[in-house]
Amino acid sequence: MRWTPSRLPRCRAQNRTPTQPARTASSYSSASTLALDGQDVATVLDRKPDQHGTLQPTRVIGTVRTIRNQKRRSFVEIGDGSTSRSLQALLEPHQAEGLGTGTLVALIGTWQRSPPGKEQDYELQVEELNVIGPADAEKYPLQKKFHSTEYLRTIPHLRLRTPLNALLSRLKSECDYQLANYFRDHGFIRLQPPIITSSDCEGAGEVFTVSSNPDARHIGRADGSSLDGPDQFFREPKYLTVSSQLHLEAYMNEHTKVWTISPTFRADKSDTARHVSEFWMLEAEMRAEALSDIMTTVEDMIKHLLEGLRATNLVQELVTLKRRDGVKDVEIGQQVASLISERWAGLTERPWPSVTYSEAMEALKYATKSGAAEFKHFPTWQRGLQAEHERYVAKIFGQGSPVFVTEYPQLIKPFYMLPSNRESWYGSDKRATVACFDLLLPDGCEVVGGSLREHRLDYLSHAVQKCGLKDGKIDDGSVGLEARRSSENSNREWYLDLRRYGSVPHGGFGMGFDRLLGYLTGVPNIKDVITWPRYHGRCDC
Amino acid sequence: MRWTPSRLPRCRAQNRTPTQPARTASSYSSASTLALDGQDVATVLDRKPDQHGTLQPTRVIGTVRTIRNQKRRSFVEIGDGSTSRSLQALLEPHQAEGLGTGTLVALIGTWQRSPPGKEQDYELQVEELNVIGPADAEKYPLQKKFHSTEYLRTIPHLRLRTPLNALLSRLKSECDYQLANYFRDHGFIRLQPPIITSSDCEGAGEVFTVSSNPDARHIGRADGSSLDGPDQFFREPKYLTVSSQLHLEAYMNEHTKVWTISPTFRADKSDTARHVSEFWMLEAEMRAEALSDIMTTVEDMIKHLLEGLRATNLVQELVTLKRRDGVKDVEIGQQVASLISERWAGLTERPWPSVTYSEAMEALKYATKSGAAEFKHFPTWQRGLQAEHERYVAKIFGQGSPVFVTEYPQLIKPFYMLPSNRESWYGSDKRATVACFDLLLPDGCEVVGGSLREHRLDYLSHAVQKCGLKDGKIDDGSVGLEARRSSENSNREWYLDLRRYGSVPHGGFGMGFDRLLGYLTGVPNIKDVITWPRYHGRCDC
Repeated sequence: MRWTPSRLPRCRAQNRTPTQPARTASSYSSASTLALDGQDVATVLDRKPDQHGTLQPTRVIGTVRTIRNQKRRSFVEIGDGSTSRSLQALLEPHQAEGLGTGTLVALIGTWQRSPPGKEQDYELQVEELNVIGPADAEKYPLQKKFHSTEYLRTIPHLRLRTPLNALLSRLKSECDYQLANYFRDHGFIRLQPPIITSSDCEGAGEVFTVSSNPDARHIGRADGSSLDGPDQFFREPKYLTVSSQLHLEAYMNEHTKVWTISPTFRADKSDTARHVSEFWMLEAEMRAEALSDIMTTVEDMIKHLLEGLRATNLVQELVTLKRRDGVKDVEIGQQVASLISERWAGLTERPWPSVTYSEAMEALKYATKSGAAEFKHFPTWQRGLQAEHERYVAKIFGQGSPVFVTEYPQLIKPFYMLPSNRESWYGSDKRATVACFDLLLPDGCEVVGGSLREHRLDYLSHAVQKCGLKDGKIDDGSVGLEARRSSENSNREWYLDLRRYGSVPHGGFGMGFDRLLGYLTGVPNIKDVITWPRYHGRCDC
Repeated sequence: MRWTPSRLPRCRAQNRTPTQPARTASSYSSASTLALDGQDVATVLDRKPDQHGTLQPTRVIGTVRTIRNQKRRSFVEIGDGSTSRSLQALLEPHQAEGLGTGTLVALIGTWQRSPPGKEQDYELQVEELNVIGPADAEKYPLQKKFHSTEYLRTIPHLRLRTPLNALLSRLKSECDYQLANYFRDHGFIRLQPPIITSSDCEGAGEVFTVSSNPDARHIGRADGSSLDGPDQFFREPKYLTVSSQLHLEAYMNEHTKVWTISPTFRADKSDTARHVSEFWMLEAEMRAEALSDIMTTVEDMIKHLLEGLRATNLVQELVTLKRRDGVKDVEIGQQVASLISERWAGLTERPWPSVTYSEAMEALKYATKSGAAEFKHFPTWQRGLQAEHERYVAKIFGQGSPVFVTEYPQLIKPFYMLPSNRESWYGSDKRATVACFDLLLPDGCEVVGGSLREHRLDYLSHAVQKCGLKDGKIDDGSVGLEARRSSENSNREWYLDLRRYGSVPHGGFGMGFDRLLGYLTGVPNIKDVITWPRYHGRCDC
């Protein structure tokens, strides 16, 4: 039989939704489509109680969290990512044979009231059990016991199945959605900025370099001379972005208000609870003349986000989540729950105070002199706020709310920030400050940083020159290291073009998505908020 | 006067919205907050016509696109990123002095009906003009004339100000929003997958390597031995992700349905209209037993997206946009408009056909033999579909709609795909196919690729071993290059763990966001769809 094109094209059935069984495109889908039919655990648990105790046939798919075998029946806790709660299933002992923690099962049974006095109101009387994905319960790395955070970090691909981590994933998803709505309602457009860049917005010492040849680092010359070898994919060295700010500024000129949530990178070796080498940052740029316009947007955005999250059941889940330390589950749970409630209240119930850097410095010095506080590092204007200083400032000025610290010294901030005194040229005054802010959470963690940007060509050119490294030689030393770094290794001409042609006063901010989330959920280390944390010496999976 | 902490904290005024003038945090914001008050061009243009011709005072901020000076008045076109249309402003000649293309201005005046017979219905009679951001009109790289796409690519930071590119940015933003709603409504959660990874999902030859020391590539040993030097930030070589699929699979196990839009990278030197080295990809993974479940989701998602976009005015803007070739503006515009209308119709008005790879191959061979088509490369089963073959298949089978090509040979697809015949072990049958699809747009461009994933531990382990390079030695040669590459250099144990513990049948897909956008907007080269394209030899800004 000869083939003719007109015979062959086959259309799949119209009007099917992804959840309906589909007419399959060809013979390979011989498996039953019934096996994966079933509800998630949240859906089953959230069923309205039936007053008359009518039996309700139910099919649920989930993972076995624990099994408790008694003589005449087995109690199995079933969970999945839809909720951090679990569902109690009752099985005949023979049904539970071979079942273990970690097994993925489909259960068919009756959703019925539990006898009075039980922890749960409803339970599943199982009639049929199908094992979808077996698991070796002995070897399964997530047992029903206390696992240290350090241990869990070694298995990120399985850690995400723990109730806390699954909740974090859902929470992040919801944050993205709420933030997207906030920005859309306020006229911002969402962008996909570049990740491989020529510029290193904050500091050349901490960028990752990108090369195309995995073996390039093994190739060298005996005399140590430079090698323009196979790794020069882009002709010159390129970096992973440390911030999308400069690129967002380009869009801002045309679109007035722009934002993004995108990955950023720091080749930072410091091992703290707040630092990782890869994190998704929320950044926004907008036309603005006053720093307070930026600060107000930040406050408004975060409060809107929390309001949106409160309207879901995620917060309720957070405070009722069982957090285990292996000994005092309930107590730990209560402690975390009250910590979280307090934190959310501090963020939402009051306007957030602001304080200038100078005022903060005065307070720190006064505290040192009066003996009200002891610091490892003596606070000085030139050196900026150390972590211990930030904690103190946040506590004293924030009183449980976040606090904006504004107007930092120019010499410790990047070159692109607008001077507080707009007549002042870059580097001409060592006491000069810039129109910027850091937002400190009550625990002292810097969660947002923002500023007005220098929008005037002549002032910005001057700052770039003043900060620039030329031929490896550092300039006259009148500028600080951070400021100097921020203009190293960069092709700044395109950035100056933005001021050369139709510039406009503007500013913006960057928010550490995961730092905020860690604070809101009471997870102290950012390495446990990010599913696959990358930091010095570690990049699993 | 001694400082006391209780005196200093200052609260900013409550209940301010970002658009209201704010009480500024301190003395630095001395500038008038009036300068940036004003409407965008779209808002002014979209005002409902006033039947009585009542004069309406208006303040608008935008960029001068063109100026036409006549003896008694000057006609100035004002535009911004809010719309690709522009607004006509009428100035006294003395007001227009010194104004040039690219200048950002604030105009205060009366929004009034234009005299009959004019191109526009309304115009702005300017009373006051303020220059916010001057521009040297002579040097401004965007003049009112034809600029080649090649030229525009050299100035990505300014190209984004052209009406087409500004529209593309808004369109991307809207796509993100529509897709987020689609996935949320269908129970998917949105994730932030890792960018720096250990695995190279598709092919080790095309990954970018990440190192922390920009000078690491200049360091080597004379004997060529390997160097565990300063660039080993993560202890071992790490790559920029080529796909988030493997990580999404880990989440899928717990969350059933997951998706992301995130950046992916290929160190691919091929210079075509469809390839760049960095692009944002939409990826999704879900529980599924039949390939058609995945295909139906793809079709449903894209149709929902287009429906959402049609409800905005973006599509109308697209087809009325002036596209210039310097000679025949109107004609070009009409050609593109009808092309776009045709493309949208083909995507939305019919169910999409599907065809197997074998059937497509038969059709190609028949076409070759019968002389119906001439190909540079003779179609063979082992070599897969070349671009010219894809174009032909898309044309013949798609008839203006996208077409799913399914069940490709196993040996030319990655190791993780589920065999069409589920009993067949990896590599045991050279004619074996896998449960996968490519979605070809009517122009032959592959815009989505998806498959069911091998969810069974024993089959997957076998495939990994069969594909693996061990000690640099290639195995028995029974597997193809692409298949082999896909398991090189990777730590697969964590991926096998996903099958070891509670595995579930599933599948997913990846969609080239910018490829689809290029097709929908009639922009033929992906380098002109992505604002800052990165490709071999080029990474500007």
